[in-house]
Amino acid sequence: MATINCDMGEGFGLYRIGADAALMPLIDVANVACGFHAADPVQMRATVRLARAHGVAVGAHPSLPDLQGFGRREMAMGREELAACLIYQIGALSGFLAAEGMTLHHIKPHGALYGMAARLEHVAAAICDAADVFRVPIFGLPGTLHETLYPARGHRYVAEFYADLDYTDAGGLIITREHAPVDPAEAARRCRRAVRDGRGTSIGGVDIPVGRDSVCIHSDTPNAVAVAEAVRAAVRPGE
Amino acid sequence: MATINCDMGEGFGLYRIGADAALMPLIDVANVACGFHAADPVQMRATVRLARAHGVAVGAHPSLPDLQGFGRREMAMGREELAACLIYQIGALSGFLAAEGMTLHHIKPHGALYGMAARLEHVAAAICDAADVFRVPIFGLPGTLHETLYPARGHRYVAEFYADLDYTDAGGLIITREHAPVDPAEAARRCRRAVRDGRGTSIGGVDIPVGRDSVCIHSDTPNAVAVAEAVRAAVRPGE
Amino acid sequence: MATINCDMGEGFGLYRIGADAALMPLIDVANVACGFHAADPVQMRATVRLARAHGVAVGAHPSLPDLQGFGRREMAMGREELAACLIYQIGALSGFLAAEGMTLHHIKPHGALYGMAARLEHVAAAICDAADVFRVPIFGLPGTLHETLYPARGHRYVAEFYADLDYTDAGGLIITREHAPVDPAEAARRCRRAVRDGRGTSIGGVDIPVGRDSVCIHSDTPNAVAVAEAVRAAVRPGE
Amino acid sequence: MATINCDMGEGFGLYRIGADAALMPLIDVANVACGFHAADPVQMRATVRLARAHGVAVGAHPSLPDLQGFGRREMAMGREELAACLIYQIGALSGFLAAEGMTLHHIKPHGALYGMAARLEHVAAAICDAADVFRVPIFGLPGTLHETLYPARGHRYVAEFYADLDYTDAGGLIITREHAPVDPAEAARRCRRAVRDGRGTSIGGVDIPVGRDSVCIHSDTPNAVAVAEAVRAAVRPGE
Repeated sequence: MATINCDMGEGFGLYRIGADAALMPLIDVANVACGFHAADPVQMRATVRLARAHGVAVGAHPSLPDLQGFGRREMAMGREELAACLIYQIGALSGFLAAEGMTLHHIKPHGALYGMAARLEHVAAAICDAADVFRVPIFGLPGTLHETLYPARGHRYVAEFYADLDYTDAGGLIITREHAPVDPAEAARRCRRAVRDGRGTSIGGVDIPVGRDSVCIHSDTPNAVAVAEAVRAAVRPGE
Repeated sequence: MATINCDMGEGFGLYRIGADAALMPLIDVANVACGFHAADPVQMRATVRLARAHGVAVGAHPSLPDLQGFGRREMAMGREELAACLIYQIGALSGFLAAEGMTLHHIKPHGALYGMAARLEHVAAAICDAADVFRVPIFGLPGTLHETLYPARGHRYVAEFYADLDYTDAGGLIITREHAPVDPAEAARRCRRAVRDGRGTSIGGVDIPVGRDSVCIHSDTPNAVAVAEAVRAAVRPGE
Repeated sequence: MATINCDMGEGFGLYRIGADAALMPLIDVANVACGFHAADPVQMRATVRLARAHGVAVGAHPSLPDLQGFGRREMAMGREELAACLIYQIGALSGFLAAEGMTLHHIKPHGALYGMAARLEHVAAAICDAADVFRVPIFGLPGTLHETLYPARGHRYVAEFYADLDYTDAGGLIITREHAPVDPAEAARRCRRAVRDGRGTSIGGVDIPVGRDSVCIHSDTPNAVAVAEAVRAAVRPGE
Repeated sequence: MATINCDMGEGFGLYRIGADAALMPLIDVANVACGFHAADPVQMRATVRLARAHGVAVGAHPSLPDLQGFGRREMAMGREELAACLIYQIGALSGFLAAEGMTLHHIKPHGALYGMAARLEHVAAAICDAADVFRVPIFGLPGTLHETLYPARGHRYVAEFYADLDYTDAGGLIITREHAPVDPAEAARRCRRAVRDGRGTSIGGVDIPVGRDSVCIHSDTPNAVAVAEAVRAAVRPGE
């Protein structure tokens, strides 16, 4: 059965983004920011504790080193420096998990890193280099290097569907620096079809294959809680 | 028998400080910077690998969050935010250790954090909070809260002697932002006495108790390698 | 006549704090964050433009270098490094002012820097060192080094009253990392008395002297707009 | 007559790169780092003072926001956020210049920003947007957007020759994260030809047009002082 995953803990210092407390009860898996695009140690610890309190599994949501750009600006980095940045972030999160008696559930690259890994082999390879250390599944996008390279390197790949983002005709994601509101009913419809058939519709009306292992929602969508409730009802109809 | 420990991996980006490659063969234990006062992920990984190549054990050298001040400026932080900063840094280093099949050897607070923990209970408590997660010994200074609070919280305390720093008449360390050259023969003499008798001489000529479990040398002392060689000959006379 | 000043532009990247757009029409003078405790270049530029659109004068609101702590954690820094940090920040803001054909109106130290300058001579001196370069008034607190040292160094001192903070019996400010809601009517009453008599009441009920040149309101008080409206009606009764 | 320019003040905190004190007497124009790829406020101030002591003019050397990568990693940034980052940095430097009674001499983009501006119109446009504020010449590379777009926007363009870098057959620069040693005599030969004829030889042996207004040397080339002395003798033969 498909899980619902959500990026969590993406504030910093006094700043807050996303209705984490309201969303946590609605999801199965939290992708927790690791300090490079968002989150500081205090927020990471609080987010891990919030996840534990709701029985939510915690994965790492590492990023390019770009706090000012929220990790949504592509940066030219080599495989080795990328891998080192990932191990650093995932290790840091693992410290907070150890503090709560939890273990790391998965790795999900954030923002520009996710998009770069979809099409640049040295980036996808760096993610695998980090996964070699922590031995957990990697979340990713069908029809990209995520789908081919992670399993080829011996890592479990979890195919995602994005309930609140648009897809290109080629099946790629349209990622923006700030997220627009999404119609919850429409998001729910998309999720039912994705989970049942593994199919979606691009922004140009093209029928495309999409992931069905886990549905992703974003906490910084303006109406994120309404979207999450609709998605949960769609993906877990019997609850 | 006393070990020799040294702060390592304290460069950042293109910057290098300290003759790490020359010093690593001369020491037993490396205190590896974790990114908050120095080091980036690439340098941390390289430093851990260098330590492994020389059979040197690796401890975490976490700091206040102050890259610009090299962690040598005191900052007013609460126990919980300090503890979170420490778990973050030690967790990050643990990732690189896991990548090399190594385990964390100890925790040694850096710079102003070390000095604050010596006299401020909430700071020493935060270090213990982090050590609760990783269960390794903590390096510290006799006659301070290090000596009393770490064991009281159930952590092993390793008493240090500083071969290249001056002591106050009260047994405290005189820490400067930049380190001056040290006479190797004098450092060796001090070490022999420290290790044998647990005694030293303050800058004012007072006989004071000092640590004897581990001798610390600094990699950013201008003549650090000469000091390290002299200290090694003093502490390991039979080699 | 007393002006109303407010800290502005204290977001960062995607993060926003404070209802800047709603508050700007209600104030006379904006203290614009300069990137060390909050604000990035994009937000600084937008804030300066917003001020210009409302005919609001712009002063610099420089901070200790502590983005994670929002500049509200004291740091031990020497006079020269403080002065350099201030010149850097004020210069950066001056660039955005030049771009809009505006000139710098004043300097108002932020958070822990403001509090430290009130009682530590080397900190107040560093602020004067920066003001020597830019030749504008400095906002500050009566009964502290602000009041004595700035004029002694030849700088105009603007005495502030804080509408939304509590005062100690000694006339000092009680600064917290996050601000609590404030009763607008109570804030208005305090302002009227401050501006008319230069007197206030401490948290312990003691009658104390307070500033009367400018009334400060905080944009990150939860009900900041309501407070600002009440304060404006109190300070500008005829409008 | 051609000037000699050099990037200066590229250390950070305790870190130092480049023999600034030895190079400053040998150059005419210093490109001073502004804190985004290197330099902190203390180092900026010291570098400006060092330049003044040697009668060296000071230009701004702004960068992409990437301290860890020394500004040598390309980042995907829009024109507006780039322009804001540039105004911030140049403004900050201008504060230190004002403190010394100096004025800004020019703008020279650093590292990846320089390379991106050579071929990406929105990047070159952002540099012009910043130059609109400060009204100084922009240093750049012939045969690129530097040469065409800066003058088209009404800015004076200063064509550079790189004494210590290799050129591609197309006349582009080969920029590396760390610089290798350069033969001083060979650098001098190249400079004489560049300044006299405006011609150079690519790494593939192709005769290419090069800049002749100013010769650039890098302070982080391992033998930078020897290169600078040879270049000075070549460019200023009569001194």
